[in-house]
Amino acid sequence: MTVKAVVFDAYGTLYDVQSLSSVTEEMFPGKGELITQVWRLKQLEYSWLRSQMGAFRDFWSISQESLAYTLDCLGVAYDKAVFETIMDKYRHLDPYSDTISSLQGLSSLKRAILSNGSQGMLDALVKNTGLDQHLDAWISIDAVEIFKPNRKTYGLIEEKFGVKPEEVLFVSSNAFDACGAKNFGLKVAWIERVTAQALRDEVAGLDVVGPTTMFKLLRMRMEHWGLDPDYRLKSLNELPALCGV
Amino acid sequence: MTVKAVVFDAYGTLYDVQSLSSVTEEMFPGKGELITQVWRLKQLEYSWLRSQMGAFRDFWSISQESLAYTLDCLGVAYDKAVFETIMDKYRHLDPYSDTISSLQGLSSLKRAILSNGSQGMLDALVKNTGLDQHLDAWISIDAVEIFKPNRKTYGLIEEKFGVKPEEVLFVSSNAFDACGAKNFGLKVAWIERVTAQALRDEVAGLDVVGPTTMFKLLRMRMEHWGLDPDYRLKSLNELPALCGV
Repeated sequence: MTVKAVVFDAYGTLYDVQSLSSVTEEMFPGKGELITQVWRLKQLEYSWLRSQMGAFRDFWSISQESLAYTLDCLGVAYDKAVFETIMDKYRHLDPYSDTISSLQGLSSLKRAILSNGSQGMLDALVKNTGLDQHLDAWISIDAVEIFKPNRKTYGLIEEKFGVKPEEVLFVSSNAFDACGAKNFGLKVAWIERVTAQALRDEVAGLDVVGPTTMFKLLRMRMEHWGLDPDYRLKSLNELPALCGV
Repeated sequence: MTVKAVVFDAYGTLYDVQSLSSVTEEMFPGKGELITQVWRLKQLEYSWLRSQMGAFRDFWSISQESLAYTLDCLGVAYDKAVFETIMDKYRHLDPYSDTISSLQGLSSLKRAILSNGSQGMLDALVKNTGLDQHLDAWISIDAVEIFKPNRKTYGLIEEKFGVKPEEVLFVSSNAFDACGAKNFGLKVAWIERVTAQALRDEVAGLDVVGPTTMFKLLRMRMEHWGLDPDYRLKSLNELPALCGV
């Protein structure tokens, strides 16, 4: 496959949003898992629903709204300092173990992020984690004031690099995002971080399906839309070979 | 309060979507709860995401896609007859215990449904449950080919009845829907079927937060958008007094 640019989703693809659990658990011992999963699910919902209502707010605001929703739902007490400590983790998320090696292997191509994250969130995160050394750009959807999977968001890649949709490989572990990119006309690789069998085995081994498994059931399998991605990969490290570099 | 029309959401407001559990449990013993919750959560997601992609399919199709996603995720075997038996429950959902008494109490006003459901689904459901005797109209979003909370959907009420937004009381137990209607400019009553305290107590009493409680956490509390409804009610039976009839 020949492409000119490889463009990555950020949250869940290059960065592990589950790493939020370290701070939510520290702030609320015993509740970190539940807070992390409800927060992430509501955050995505809010991005879709605000887009649908024509009532855009940037992803930092949406992340605050969904965190406040989550903490209030659970009835846990918190002050401004606790809230801001949790939010600050979005400036320091952990990259996955295959993130930097994959980006290094793709250095002969344009490499970028296209993310729901606000430009401010992305600037801080990319620099704090050193990914700025391995990326040509980190593009926020801020410019179009609507979130993925709206078609306008994927159009920002051509605007930035002057490359046609078919010259771009878009990489995401978020199924809705992979399908949205496919719907737009990009070449798409879906990172299948949890296989069908592994998830079935996990469910079968549980008496009660808890929040993290529920999250996987809702977010980590391919959508049934007839918009399947071109490639299914197990790791970002498969990308250089796929791109022939 | 004086209004000319009271317009209801269907799924979760007049009809109990949890009543799907009777058939999912019958078809898949021990798995009914998990299937019901994942299916409903994905069904709503699909309505928002297909709207966002500009790739509309009607709610019957979306309900099929999300059911297939759910069953495949869990790896349960099924044939066409099982699938259709489950889907058929959407033509026979249980009304809540306060549904008919409330509609009877509002008989001096226009009474209608505004639903994501396809016209075919609504026609069958309303007639099978006898609600056609208590409603002036059941309006599907089919005509605008986009789902709630898009503003176009709420505009269908004025188109049908010739009433201004401020002459309509919109009633929903779905927080995103109540907020969407408020964002559009309708008067809104939110049916708070689970109170904040009841949900906190439920969570506190569990070792592991299972699928039904997770569903409540995600779907049954007010969104943090600054779009709070005008009224919070515990039961549909409070509506006649609220409307002064």
